[in-house]
Amino acid sequence: MPIMEENNYNMMKEKKVVVAVDESEESMYALSWCLNNLLSENHNPNSTLILLYIKPPIPVYSALDVTGYLFAEDVIANMEKYSKDLANSVMNRAEAVCRNFTSKVKVEKKVGSGDAKDVICIAVDKLEADILVLGSHDYGFFKRALLGSVSDYCAKHVKCPLVVVKRPKTA
Amino acid sequence: MPIMEENNYNMMKEKKVVVAVDESEESMYALSWCLNNLLSENHNPNSTLILLYIKPPIPVYSALDVTGYLFAEDVIANMEKYSKDLANSVMNRAEAVCRNFTSKVKVEKKVGSGDAKDVICIAVDKLEADILVLGSHDYGFFKRALLGSVSDYCAKHVKCPLVVVKRPKTA
Repeated sequence: MPIMEENNYNMMKEKKVVVAVDESEESMYALSWCLNNLLSENHNPNSTLILLYIKPPIPVYSALDVTGYLFAEDVIANMEKYSKDLANSVMNRAEAVCRNFTSKVKVEKKVGSGDAKDVICIAVDKLEADILVLGSHDYGFFKRALLGSVSDYCAKHVKCPLVVVKRPKTA
Repeated sequence: MPIMEENNYNMMKEKKVVVAVDESEESMYALSWCLNNLLSENHNPNSTLILLYIKPPIPVYSALDVTGYLFAEDVIANMEKYSKDLANSVMNRAEAVCRNFTSKVKVEKKVGSGDAKDVICIAVDKLEADILVLGSHDYGFFKRALLGSVSDYCAKHVKCPLVVVKRPKTA
């Protein structure tokens, strides 16, 4: 029975768990959930946790406006700096969550850039991840139409199991 | 920092893991994945695994057709028997997967009926589940339009983390 063979295979295998992190509380909660539920001390000591942050793409069209070239370059440099600072800030926060966790976990950091849902799916396949963990944003209708589709898209496109973690509402 | 408090809370808590099972290989694979990754021996010894099977609703309109009343009743009885047999068969198979698993897990069975996605969400909230696990069907476009929406719907409507497990393609 193939399912049983798969069981034994899973038990021995080192796991690669990818957590997509961003500046939201939801993604930090998802990371914390993942450490507790998928990477506990006794579970998979050789597993690797990969923190994946996707920088939003920087619009380049302003550089094509010749009259404002110097200004535009300046703006782009500022945006790039902001984007880099944000990436560092998210990664630092994510690492702090990992450090606070009782058991030791191998942590790797990966930063990509582009449309988050596409880049996440490409990275997960390339890294041959065993599990992808995403935080779920409890957005209203409009924001969900734009952003909430990340988990729907990933559920359809990644090959590995996907965990969508919703942050419980605090009373 | 609330995330850290949540960590300790999670570590001690008995977990209720709901796996939605049906007659598909995908759902049995999801169950097997869940046993390996969420309910391993050292992880949460007091956790409960709830096998949730949702019987499709039986159409009742034929019973309203007075001329064919006796025939219709017969048909309905047959459909009910088939539906019950299918539920038993799925549950037996799911229990066999659990028995084959090395560590002991408390297993409960729940059978509901109706539109799977609605009933799953209602059951998960009512049971106060900590995790919902679904198998992902690699359907084509038309079947996905009808059935693939279960995971999308659950991701939006359940309060707890959702795991969508895709069965790897065997070469």
